[in-house]
This record gives sequence, structure tokens and C-alpha cells, in this order.
Amino acid sequence: MKEISKLMDYRSDVRVVDATLRDGGLVNDFYFTDEFVKDLYRANVKAGVDYMEFGYKASKEMFDENKFGKWKFCSDDDIRAIVGDNDTGLKLAVMADVGRCDYKTDIVNQSESPIDLIRVATYLNTIPTAVDMIEDAAKKGYEVSCNIMAISNAQESDLAVALDLLGKSPADVFYIVDSYGSLYPEQIARIADVYMNFAAKYGKKVGIHAHNNQQLAFANTIEAVGDGVDWLDGTYAGMGRGAGNCAMELLIGFLRNPKYNIAPVFRFIEKHITKLKEDHVVWGYDLQYLMTGLLNQHPRTAISFTKENRQDYFEFYKELIEQD
Amino acid sequence: MKEISKLMDYRSDVRVVDATLRDGGLVNDFYFTDEFVKDLYRANVKAGVDYMEFGYKASKEMFDENKFGKWKFCSDDDIRAIVGDNDTGLKLAVMADVGRCDYKTDIVNQSESPIDLIRVATYLNTIPTAVDMIEDAAKKGYEVSCNIMAISNAQESDLAVALDLLGKSPADVFYIVDSYGSLYPEQIARIADVYMNFAAKYGKKVGIHAHNNQQLAFANTIEAVGDGVDWLDGTYAGMGRGAGNCAMELLIGFLRNPKYNIAPVFRFIEKHITKLKEDHVVWGYDLQYLMTGLLNQHPRTAISFTKENRQDYFEFYKELIEQD
Repeated sequence: MKEISKLMDYRSDVRVVDATLRDGGLVNDFYFTDEFVKDLYRANVKAGVDYMEFGYKASKEMFDENKFGKWKFCSDDDIRAIVGDNDTGLKLAVMADVGRCDYKTDIVNQSESPIDLIRVATYLNTIPTAVDMIEDAAKKGYEVSCNIMAISNAQESDLAVALDLLGKSPADVFYIVDSYGSLYPEQIARIADVYMNFAAKYGKKVGIHAHNNQQLAFANTIEAVGDGVDWLDGTYAGMGRGAGNCAMELLIGFLRNPKYNIAPVFRFIEKHITKLKEDHVVWGYDLQYLMTGLLNQHPRTAISFTKENRQDYFEFYKELIEQD
Repeated sequence: MKEISKLMDYRSDVRVVDATLRDGGLVNDFYFTDEFVKDLYRANVKAGVDYMEFGYKASKEMFDENKFGKWKFCSDDDIRAIVGDNDTGLKLAVMADVGRCDYKTDIVNQSESPIDLIRVATYLNTIPTAVDMIEDAAKKGYEVSCNIMAISNAQESDLAVALDLLGKSPADVFYIVDSYGSLYPEQIARIADVYMNFAAKYGKKVGIHAHNNQQLAFANTIEAVGDGVDWLDGTYAGMGRGAGNCAMELLIGFLRNPKYNIAPVFRFIEKHITKLKEDHVVWGYDLQYLMTGLLNQHPRTAISFTKENRQDYFEFYKELIEQD
């Protein structure tokens, strides 16, 4: 059982990362209005959020700029149009996916960019490229974190090798990522233990990015906090791919550090999220996501089920079981 | 950290209680169709659920039978019309609220009733009446459980006195009830520890009934399982008052005992819950419930907010803060 003081007090090393534009962008192809993004930026500043992730640094060679909103590409100019000189306490982040980012050319020196943090996202089998991206970003002067995706499907021995490689890299933070929303809090406790050991050995921090397929994104995040994990991803109203993420309003409500304020989160959701939902932008817990989570599968089939407005859950379950 | 074997294996003492009609009835004034109730009964039998709670044994002196569906009153004849002789492994339960039940007259001997379990619900300040109801039910031959409501507002010393009184009563099970949905898993672990100590002393079992104000109903339930709590309340699609309850589909998906089957749960939800939602029966996580949960308040103001179709969350939050 954890120390009772942890329930009442707080750890000043905790960092809250708003991933609404990035993971939420996967729901609406990054077509956010400028008003949405400006208000989100202001809400984050007022709420005391530590980092705001604007989106992806996606390769314009690989992805058609006419088929996505600008936050799939996150040009420095587009970010500056929102934040100006960003003379606030909020730091800015973008995600760079292994294999989908022309990082050598598209990421300039930090001294010339409004971005503070590069979040490298990788699967286990592409760790060497991730390390190259991490080194590139660190050399250019950025803070760097690394998300290892889909670890619920990973062998523990492979994960240990990956964490050792990342430990030797200049990454500042390793992220636990429950891409499929299939992990229970007890499993998070065990995984956090593995990550924390490597983090201690190499002087790194650990983060968590959770998905809500089993209504456990928030629970897994606060389990991780209790296990010593400091970097916590949330999104407003849980907006994110499929079943969505840990809801920012739950996370800010939980954290005891007086620097965090929940009221701006409520105001933002009232103004913007209600409208998104009325416009039929769909995310959040539903049976099809529970099913892929339970089966430890990528949510792509459940996302298709949702897009097709299907409601034949049982038939979908049989399809999944037959393919499993 | 809990034993890893608990993640893979199962405890045969676990009992799953379906509270859909009872807690869900608080959302629609117990107006369920007979088809809904019959299909729910069949789904529970097929899913391996252990107990099905039909509703309340509410006083007909206090409540107008014309203003509620029949499951607020749960006559034995109405139950028999659904279950016949109930020659299944599923046991039947009703809830009897302290101060709202004419238990001496309305609860007949178990040998003459289809009901197996009387669930007495009480606040801390009415424990002596609860004990009288428990003794009455036990004398009539029923299994008896006792829900102590709103414990998140209780003094620990008062709770200890109550558990000692209930320990000396013939109740078989004590329930942890997070009425306001305000508790975090770490708090559940501590409360479960208190309950388990009294349960061990008096040879009782412990149960949990959670609410989803902070998207923690399922997480708190599985935390409790890990702490030795055996009786677990769930409702289909989480249907229940306000933010609702621990979702049956999540719970059955988690439990490893092969007696439980998730497919009948999916089928029932597909057939009946989608329709309820289309008919504007509203429950489930939303900001107003998070707010009352965070403030450790009864959800009645949030329920009014929902019924009035309000969406001015921030104004509601200010109202709550001003009254707090």
C-alpha cells in the first residue's frame, strides 16, 4: 500500500503534458480551428499545464498537406501564429514518428524554433532509428522524450534491451504507452517498476500515455504516479484515438500541486468540446474499443466499426474472435 | 505490489452482482419493459453472474405505485412472472432501504419467496435499524448483505463502530459503497483493509459498489478484488444513478474464472442499451458528476443539471464552489 502522505501532498517533479491536438488530431485529421487551438493554449497556460503537444512533425513527402489539418505538420510558423513569443510557463512539444518524419531537414535548431520538446514515438523494432532521432534532436538543443508504443505486446526481455539503449541515448524521458488500452493497473505497476529501474540507472524520467478502452486511462495514470512516474499525458475530455486518453479534467482534479487549476479546463470543454461532439467528431469508451483492448489488439478495426456507424457489437466481437 | 498469480488465476469466492435494475432504475424510475427484464435475467444466467438484484422493496405507504415502475417494489409475484421457478444457478436479490421499507410485513419467509438475498442499505447514523432489518431477514431465512452508503464522508472511528455492530449481526456481507464516486484506488485499498479486518474477525465477506464520477468505478472495483474483496457489483453498460456504476462488461472481461462469459453481456447491451440511450435515458460520466465527485458531494445537483439539459458546466462549477 502506498504512503498515505502521497494522497494529500504532491511531488513537484510531476509534469502534465496536454496531448489534445496530437492524439485528438487522429480523430479529426487535425482539422482544428485556430480559435480552438488559441483557446486550448490559453487554457493550458491558466490551468498550469507544463507542456502542450501541438501535433506531429509529419513528413510532407509521405503525407499530402491537402488531406490533413496543419497540426499534422506543425511548422514553426504555424505554432508562432498561435503562441507569438510564448512568454509563458507552458512549454511546447511536437511528436516525431519513426519512419514518418524527415527530422534531419524538418526539425531546425531549437534556438530558431518555438518548440521546446521533441517527442519521438517508436515501436520496439525501430529503436535504433529512434535513437538516431533522439540524438539529432538533443544535438539541436531540444528536450527529448521517447514513447515506446504497443508495449502490451512486447516481450519483457526485448523491452529491457530497448530501455537500456534509450538509457544510453540523450533522451530525458521514457514513456510507458498503453497503445491498445489493454493494461490493468497491476500490470502498470509492474511495467513502471521496470522503467523506473532503468531510469534510475541512467538518470532519466518516466512518463505514461494511456488509452481508455477499459475505462482505465485515468486509473492507470494515477497508478503510475504512485509508482514514481512523473510525466503524465492527458487530453481535454479524453479526446484521442479510439477510446481516447486520460482526461485532463480528471488528472488536474487529482493532482494536489496548487500550480494546477481545474476551472480553465472546464471552461475550455464547455466552449469547444461540446461543439465538436455535436459536429459528430466521435471518440471515447464504447464496446468495440473494450473488445480490441481485451484482445490486446490495435484499435484500427474498432475505429472502422465506429466510422461505419455500426452498432452490431456482437457480430463485431465474433469477427474479432475469428481473426484472433 | 500484488501477487502476479492473481492477475492470471482467479479466486473462486468472487461473486458478481448485477445491479442494473436497481441502480439503473434510479435513472428511469424503474420503468423497464418485461422484455428488458427477461432478457437481462437470461443474459445474467448465460454470463455466469451470481446474483441479480431486481430492484427495491420500497414501502407502498411512502411511494406511489402509479409514479414508479414495478421494480421499485419487487413483489414476489412480479419476480416470479420473470423467473418462474428460477431453476438456474443465478440467485435473486432485492434492496431494502432503511426508513423506506416495510420489511416486517413486505418481506415474507424465504421459503415462500423467489428472493435469495436481502441487501440492506443504510447510512452510518441508521445502523441500529439496519441491524434490526438484517436480523429480520436472516430469521426469515435469507442471505443478507449490508451496504453502508456515503462512507467517503464518514469518520473512520464511526465506521469502525458500525462495522463492529454489523459484525455481531447475522449479515453475511459488508459492502464498501462509494456513493459519491469520490474515492481513488489508493483510498479503496485503505478502506478495504479496514473492512477486511472486521470481516476476518466476524467471519464475513466484503463487497464493493462503486460509482463512475471520476471514471474509477471499474478501477476501484478491481483494486478491491486485489485487496481481498469478493462481492462485486456491476451494471450493464454501467447503467446507474448519475455517472453510473462499474460496467458489467468491464468486470466480466477482467475476471478469469471460466464460469463467466462476456458474449451474453455484449448481446444484451446491443439489443437493449442502445435503444434506451436513443430514448434519451441518460447516465454516465460527464463533467457535472466529476465536479460533485471531486467535491465529495451527493450527485443530486448534478442529476438536476443533467435533467435540465444544461451544458453550462463552468457556471455549475461556480454554483457548487459557492455552496461548498
